[in-house]
Parts: sequence; structure tokens; C-alpha cells
Amino acid sequence: MSDVIVKNISIIGVGLIGGSFALALKNAKVVETVFGWDANHENLTLAEQLGIIDRAGPSLTDAVKDADVVLLAVPVGSMQAVARSVLAHMKSGSILTDTGSVKQTVVGSLEPLAIESDVLFVGGHPISGTERSGAAAAFKELYQDKRCILTPTPNTNSTALAIVERLWCAVGSEVVKMDVVKHDRILAAISHLPHMIAYSLVNSVSCYDRYPENILDFSAGGFRDFTRIASSDPVMWRDIALTNRESLLEMITQFEQFLAELKQDIDRGDMERLFTFFQQSKISRDAILHPDPKEH
Amino acid sequence: MSDVIVKNISIIGVGLIGGSFALALKNAKVVETVFGWDANHENLTLAEQLGIIDRAGPSLTDAVKDADVVLLAVPVGSMQAVARSVLAHMKSGSILTDTGSVKQTVVGSLEPLAIESDVLFVGGHPISGTERSGAAAAFKELYQDKRCILTPTPNTNSTALAIVERLWCAVGSEVVKMDVVKHDRILAAISHLPHMIAYSLVNSVSCYDRYPENILDFSAGGFRDFTRIASSDPVMWRDIALTNRESLLEMITQFEQFLAELKQDIDRGDMERLFTFFQQSKISRDAILHPDPKEH
Repeated sequence: MSDVIVKNISIIGVGLIGGSFALALKNAKVVETVFGWDANHENLTLAEQLGIIDRAGPSLTDAVKDADVVLLAVPVGSMQAVARSVLAHMKSGSILTDTGSVKQTVVGSLEPLAIESDVLFVGGHPISGTERSGAAAAFKELYQDKRCILTPTPNTNSTALAIVERLWCAVGSEVVKMDVVKHDRILAAISHLPHMIAYSLVNSVSCYDRYPENILDFSAGGFRDFTRIASSDPVMWRDIALTNRESLLEMITQFEQFLAELKQDIDRGDMERLFTFFQQSKISRDAILHPDPKEH
Repeated sequence: MSDVIVKNISIIGVGLIGGSFALALKNAKVVETVFGWDANHENLTLAEQLGIIDRAGPSLTDAVKDADVVLLAVPVGSMQAVARSVLAHMKSGSILTDTGSVKQTVVGSLEPLAIESDVLFVGGHPISGTERSGAAAAFKELYQDKRCILTPTPNTNSTALAIVERLWCAVGSEVVKMDVVKHDRILAAISHLPHMIAYSLVNSVSCYDRYPENILDFSAGGFRDFTRIASSDPVMWRDIALTNRESLLEMITQFEQFLAELKQDIDRGDMERLFTFFQQSKISRDAILHPDPKEH
């Protein structure tokens, strides 16, 4: 019943993000052929074997030369270099889009390169993912009922924007548009800060040395849920931390102030302020939209 | 096939912790009658209606006078007052135990009271729970394959200790014994600190005011998993923060140092140190024993 949105799409980086997008597009029958490429040849072969992509390369040129849309799903730190290689072989008037978790630097570097190559660029970022990575982790439901943020600029071609929006809707996401600065600030708060905290927590607890045993072995479900995101890919998060530096530092500082306030209340034994602090947090947390079904 | 360990057990505080213990003991057929009491009469009635306890009160005296073992599963801040009331009506030579998340203060105050009343006290703490509370949240599998820490002192009666240990084994837990100070330090690290961080994170993000919308609405699964524990009971956590003050402040300070180090590396754009920081954390997190099956 679905109509084909574009004939040929090419996914550069067929890991969790790119691979799941490919699977979901094929499942929705809105593309005809999915080409793929990955700097990791093992991962590329796996993606082809798993049926995530229809054709792997055989070269980056082959993977993108016939594409109507090319999606870059590579670490933020590799975006610019990969975009340069890809743009050199893309058709004039075709669309380049990405899934980078930071938008100001990515859009700022990719948009001018695309314009030079007569390619239409649309910045994007799906708000979903797991701590796993690689083609083996991809699954077609990843984007179902999630949000995808697109970050058009005054230079963005409206037809290209509409096509990229239709692709994300086809994989089950709600598309929200905002400018790159707002995107980076919001993501610093709801995603980048929590990751920095989780990594710091695991390191601070695992370095606890008062006792010979590994105290992480005493952790229960709460700790495991809380620190799951500390199992995320270190390269990806190094790149995000570096490219969203300013917003992230602002949020870390804001968090530090709240934690310092709490610490002071604990130190003073201020029962009333502690109760209020915990209660306000519980109210905000309980009010998060679309709670996970397993939370009842 | 199971043998009855004690005839009458009384659960004071029939919420998630006490209620789940009652359900699991009845399921294991290791007790004959479960008496129950709760300061919240609605919750007590619900526990009786749900079959969690066999007999509710009708008074605290009735609930404990025939008990061979009384389990206190009330907030840490209420332990001492509740123990006083309970001990006044317990049989000589019977056993009092508890589930308090902090042991130094609880054992320090309950043990002398029990000795005065000729009751045998054993401090305990099951390392399990969810962010939910109340009798309606109780389920018999809560303690399955979890750890329960018992904190005997030189005054602890060895027969009483063995009985409490058998009860926890009967509900599926592995019993570990350690002194109260070690317990409180380990719990500060793996449980109390993560809760303080989660509460602080939710408050700092929900107070973000650069944009009119509630940015928590943009949060995805990672944020929800990460902050689930911020939905925990504020009274319970106020009491824990106050009673495990010293160990908790030590752990918050240690965490602050790690976060400050990370912040500095972000500020300086130190790629190598950032990668190492994230990678070390991932290695520690991935190595946590007994991973949750849903993590694959």
C-alpha cells in the first residue's frame, strides 16, 4: 500500500542507526534499493548477509553514485571527512542527510560542502538508540514512536526537507523541526549530560578501593538500568563531547550546582529541603510522556 | 517438600519490600501464618485483600504477640520508633529483623532495644527493589537471584542469624554477611549515590529554562532508564540520605572529582583522555555480573 518515496537510498555506516533505518525503510516498502557502505568491511559484509542492505559497495563510489538520498550514519567526528568523499560521487540534485547527535558543527561543515557539489543537504537526528552498536544490533522497530529532529537552515531546499521528513515518518518517527543551536542545547540536557554522568558514576564506583572485592558485583537492577548508557560506544561519545562542548559544559555546570545543593542539604541534615528536592524530582520524572509499558 | 522454618511471622510495613517477602515466604511454604501491620490502614487492608498477609492486626499488639519472627520493613527514619512499639509486645526469645537500607544507625539503635526486651535482633538488607511502593507493587519474585546482606554483630545470636538466613534463602536470595560500616559504604556507592545523582539530574534538566517547552518531553529510552530511580519514594530517600550521611558525602565527593576531571577534559578538548575515560567506564559496566537478560 505504501508509495515509494525514493528509488535508491544509500546508507553510509551500516551500524545500529544506519542499519535500523535501512531495515525499517525496506519493511515500509518506501524505497526500492538500499545501497550500503561502511569503513569496517566486516560490518559491511555482515549488513549484506543480514539483508540490511541490498548492495554493499563494492566501492564508496558505487555505493553513492546512483543514490537519490545518501544518509550518513557515522560518528560525528568522521562526518566531515566522509561527507567530502561521498559528495565527490553523488548525483547533482540528489539529497544528503545525516544522523549526527550534534548539529551545529555537523550542519555548519556539511551544508557548504553540499552546496559546492550541487547536492541538497538536510540535517537530521533521530532521538533513539541503544547502548549497542554495529550491524548485528540493528532492528527495524528502533524508530517506531520515537522523535526525529530535523534542523533546516535558510539554505535548506524545501523539497529535499519534505522527502527526508517522509522517510522518517515512514519508519514510524514523529518529525520535529528546530534550529541547530536549540537542538544542541536540548540534546546536551537530555542525552549528552546523562551519558557524561553515567560514565563518571561507573568510573567513580569502580575505582572505590576501600575493600578488595569489586563492589560493582553488589549492584542490583537499579544500578544496572542507571548505568546501561555507560556501555555506549566510547568513540561516538568522545566525538559528541568534543563537538557539543559549549552546551555540554553549560549543562554539566548546572547539574553540578544541583548536586552541590543536595550535598549541602545532606551535610546540614535538612530534612525538609531533602524531601522537597526528592519529591520535585519524582514529580518531574513521573510526568515524562510516553512511559515505557514495563513501568506499568 | 519445603520444611517450615518458623510458624508465625509478622511483617510490619506491608509495602513493596515487606509485601514481596510475605508473598515469597508463603509461596515457598516455609511459614504457616503471616501476620501483618502497616501504619497506613488502607495499605494494610489492601495487603490482606491481595492475600499478601493472612491476618491484619487488628492492632499492632495482635500482629506481633504470637510471632516467632518480626520483620520491620518501614522507612529507615521510622525504624527506631516502630521497633520500640513492636518490642513491647514480642515474645521473649523471638527474633526481630529488618530490611533497612542503612545499617549502622539502624543496628546501633535497634540492637540495644531488642536486648532490653529479651528479643534476638538480626540486621538485614535485601539488595533489590523497584521505584514503585505499596502493597500493590509487591510480587513474589522480587528477591529471586538477588543478594541479601545480613550484618551480624558480636551480640548476634547465632541461631537467630541462621533462621533469618534460611528465610532469605527460601525467597531465592544469596545471603552475604558483612559488618555494618562496610555495608553502608558499599550501599552508598552502588545505590545511594546513584539515587542522589538521578534526583539531581532530573531536577537540573527539568529546571532548564532557555525554551518554553518541557524539554523532558524530548527524552528517549536512555533518559527514562537512567532516571527511573528518581521516581523512588522521597521519604525513604530523605531518611537514607540523613542516616548514611558520612558514607554518602564521601561518595558524592568522589563522584564530583571524576565529573570535574571529565569536564576539564571536555573543556580542553583532550580527545585521548576522553576516549580513555569512556572506554574504562564501558569496560567496568560491561563486566557487571548477572547482566539483565533483556540486555542480550
